[in-house]
Amino acid sequence: MAELENDRFLRALLRESVDRTPMWMMRQAGRYLPEYRATRTKAGSFMQLCMSPELACEVTLQPLDRFPLDAAILFSDILTVPDAMGLGLGFAEGEGPYFEKPIRTEADIDALPIPDPEDELKYVMDAVRTIRSALNGRVPLIGFSGSPWTLVTYMVEGGSSKNFSRSKQMMYDRPDLMHKLLGKVADAVTLYLNAQIAAGAQAVQIFDTWGGALSTPKYQEFSLAYMRRIVAGLTREAEGRKVPVIMFTKGGGQWLELMADTGADALGLDWTTQIGDARSRVGDRVSLQGNLDPCALYASPDSIRREVADILAGYGHGNGHVFNLGHGITPDIDPEHVTALVEAVHELSKPYHV
Amino acid sequence: MAELENDRFLRALLRESVDRTPMWMMRQAGRYLPEYRATRTKAGSFMQLCMSPELACEVTLQPLDRFPLDAAILFSDILTVPDAMGLGLGFAEGEGPYFEKPIRTEADIDALPIPDPEDELKYVMDAVRTIRSALNGRVPLIGFSGSPWTLVTYMVEGGSSKNFSRSKQMMYDRPDLMHKLLGKVADAVTLYLNAQIAAGAQAVQIFDTWGGALSTPKYQEFSLAYMRRIVAGLTREAEGRKVPVIMFTKGGGQWLELMADTGADALGLDWTTQIGDARSRVGDRVSLQGNLDPCALYASPDSIRREVADILAGYGHGNGHVFNLGHGITPDIDPEHVTALVEAVHELSKPYHV
Repeated sequence: MAELENDRFLRALLRESVDRTPMWMMRQAGRYLPEYRATRTKAGSFMQLCMSPELACEVTLQPLDRFPLDAAILFSDILTVPDAMGLGLGFAEGEGPYFEKPIRTEADIDALPIPDPEDELKYVMDAVRTIRSALNGRVPLIGFSGSPWTLVTYMVEGGSSKNFSRSKQMMYDRPDLMHKLLGKVADAVTLYLNAQIAAGAQAVQIFDTWGGALSTPKYQEFSLAYMRRIVAGLTREAEGRKVPVIMFTKGGGQWLELMADTGADALGLDWTTQIGDARSRVGDRVSLQGNLDPCALYASPDSIRREVADILAGYGHGNGHVFNLGHGITPDIDPEHVTALVEAVHELSKPYHV
Repeated sequence: MAELENDRFLRALLRESVDRTPMWMMRQAGRYLPEYRATRTKAGSFMQLCMSPELACEVTLQPLDRFPLDAAILFSDILTVPDAMGLGLGFAEGEGPYFEKPIRTEADIDALPIPDPEDELKYVMDAVRTIRSALNGRVPLIGFSGSPWTLVTYMVEGGSSKNFSRSKQMMYDRPDLMHKLLGKVADAVTLYLNAQIAAGAQAVQIFDTWGGALSTPKYQEFSLAYMRRIVAGLTREAEGRKVPVIMFTKGGGQWLELMADTGADALGLDWTTQIGDARSRVGDRVSLQGNLDPCALYASPDSIRREVADILAGYGHGNGHVFNLGHGITPDIDPEHVTALVEAVHELSKPYHV
C-alpha cells in the first residue's frame, strides 16, 4: 500500500496534533455533484452503482477531485447487510428503499443467515480495494455501516418509516425477539466492518441514523449496547496504524457521555448540539466530528464562513476536532458553496492549531 | 362560569399538591377515535371542522367522554394565525397543509397584517367560549398556539418541509428579515393567546414543533427569544386564578435550562429525554409535562403499564408532573390501549403523592 500523504483526519480522530482542522462531508459523493449524477445515469440504478466496484470508486473520488478534502468515504448503501441477509432490497422511484421480505416473526429471525462479507458482500470489499488502490495514499478511506438498531428498523418496517411503529411495537412487546434480531445484525455488522478494514478501510463510522427516535433507556438497551458490542469486536489496528471508530447517533446530543464510554475514538455530532458544550461534557475521552447544519450551505459564502467560524471557536484550541456537516449534504446545494466551506475551514482553523 | 370540579392539572402545573398525577394527551381529540372520524366526515373538511364552534366543541369533548382525562384542549389547527394573516391555508389530500401565498420577500413581510383575534379569528374564540360552557367546570380548558419559529417555517416554505431549506436560508442570509417576520408573528400570537384566555382558556401551551431543527445558538435567537417575548406579554391571571403557560419544543431536550428561564410555568418533554434527569436539571423552576413515547401505545396493555411505571418512577415523589405523551397520539392507536394508559397513570401515580 502507498504511504499516506495526508493523515490529518486519522491524527485528529486520535487527538494527535495537526496543522489545521481536517474535514470531510457526510454524503460528499452525492447528487449535488453533476459528475455524480452523470455516473449514476451511466450505472442505470442506485444499487448497480453500489455493486460496481469501478463506478463506486469513480464517485468516491469525485468530491476529492473538486475539493481538497481530508478523507474519502466508501460509496455504498447502509442497507447492503440486510440485503445480503436475504431480505431483497429494492428502491421505488422517489419512495426510498424497501425490502421484499421484511422481518415479522421469530421464525423470520431464526432463518436469517449471517452473510460472509467476502461472498455475498464481496462487491463492497472489492470497492474498498479498488478505491484504496486508486487513492494511492492521497487521503485515508473511511468504511462504514448502519447501526444494528437503524438497520433493524428498515428490516422490520419493510422500508423507511415515519414513526417506527412496527419495530417499536416489537421492542416494547417482545424485547426478547428484538434482542435476538439485534444480536444477529450486530454480529453481521462486526464481520462486515472487519472485512472492510481487512480490505483497506483506515477508519470506520457507525451511522445510527434512527437511535434518536428512542427514549433514553431504550436507546441504551436497543441501540447503544449493540454499537458497543461491535466496537469491542472490531480489528483496531491495520497496516501498523490504529483504525479509529466514529460513532454517530443523529439526535443523540443528550447521550454523548454514554457514547463516549463505548470504546469509540470519536463521536459524530449533529448540528443541534453546541460543540463546545459537547467537548466539555466528553473531556479527553473522544474526539468530536461535526457539526455544521447542512442547511447553512443554502446560504451565501459569507454566511457559511460566519457559521464555520462559530463552530471552530466553539470547539476552541487544541486537538480532537474533525470538521463535518451535522448530517448528509442535500442534493440541491451549489458546489460553489462547498468550495466556500472548505476554504473557510482551511483558513479559519489554522489559529486553533498553533 | 361554573366552579372547576377537577383542578389537578392546573395545580400540578403550578407545583401544588395533588392526589394523583393528572394527565391529558396531545392530539387527544383525533383520528384514533371513531367518533372523531364521524364528526370529521360530517364537517366536510378539516378546516370546516376547525371553523365550526359547535363541531370543534363536539370533538374536544369526545375523549373526555371516553376517558377520565384531567384537561380538555381546544380543537383547532396551529396554522390559524398565518391563515388570518392572509396567507390562504389549504389542505391537499394526504399531503398536509399549504399556503397559497407564502412569504418570500421583505415586501411580503411588510404587508402582513396583525389579525384581530375577535375578528378574523373569532371562530376560534367562539369555539373556546362554546367548549367552556359545555365543559361546565368538568376539567380545565387548554388554549394553544404554534411558536413563531414553527409558524414561520410553514409561512416561508409554503407548507410542510423536510429540512426547512427556505426558512433556514432566510435565517442564515437575512437574519434581519427573519427577525422582522418573527416579531410580527410573535405579536399576532400574543394577541391570539390573550384572546383565548379572555374567552375562557385556563392554561395555554406553545407548540414549538420545529425548534428542534435549529442549532443551539439559532434556537436561542430565532425560536426561544420569541417564545419568551410571548410569555412576557400574556395575561397570567383570569377568573381569580393563575393561567399557567406550558412551553414545548419537540427535540428540545438539550435546552431545558434555557427554557426554564423564560417565565413559562411548565415544560413539555418529548420521550427522548429522561424525565428524572430533566427534573434535576430544571429544579423547582418549572413543572414538567410528559413524556411517554406515543409508539408505546402500539404495544400491549401490560407493556404500556410498564412504561408508565418507569416514567412515574423517573419523575419520583412530589409535585410538578403532568403525565402526557411525548408527542401527539397517532391515528392508528386502539382506543382500548388509551384506556389501559389512563388506568395505569391513575393507579400507579397515587403512591408518589402521599
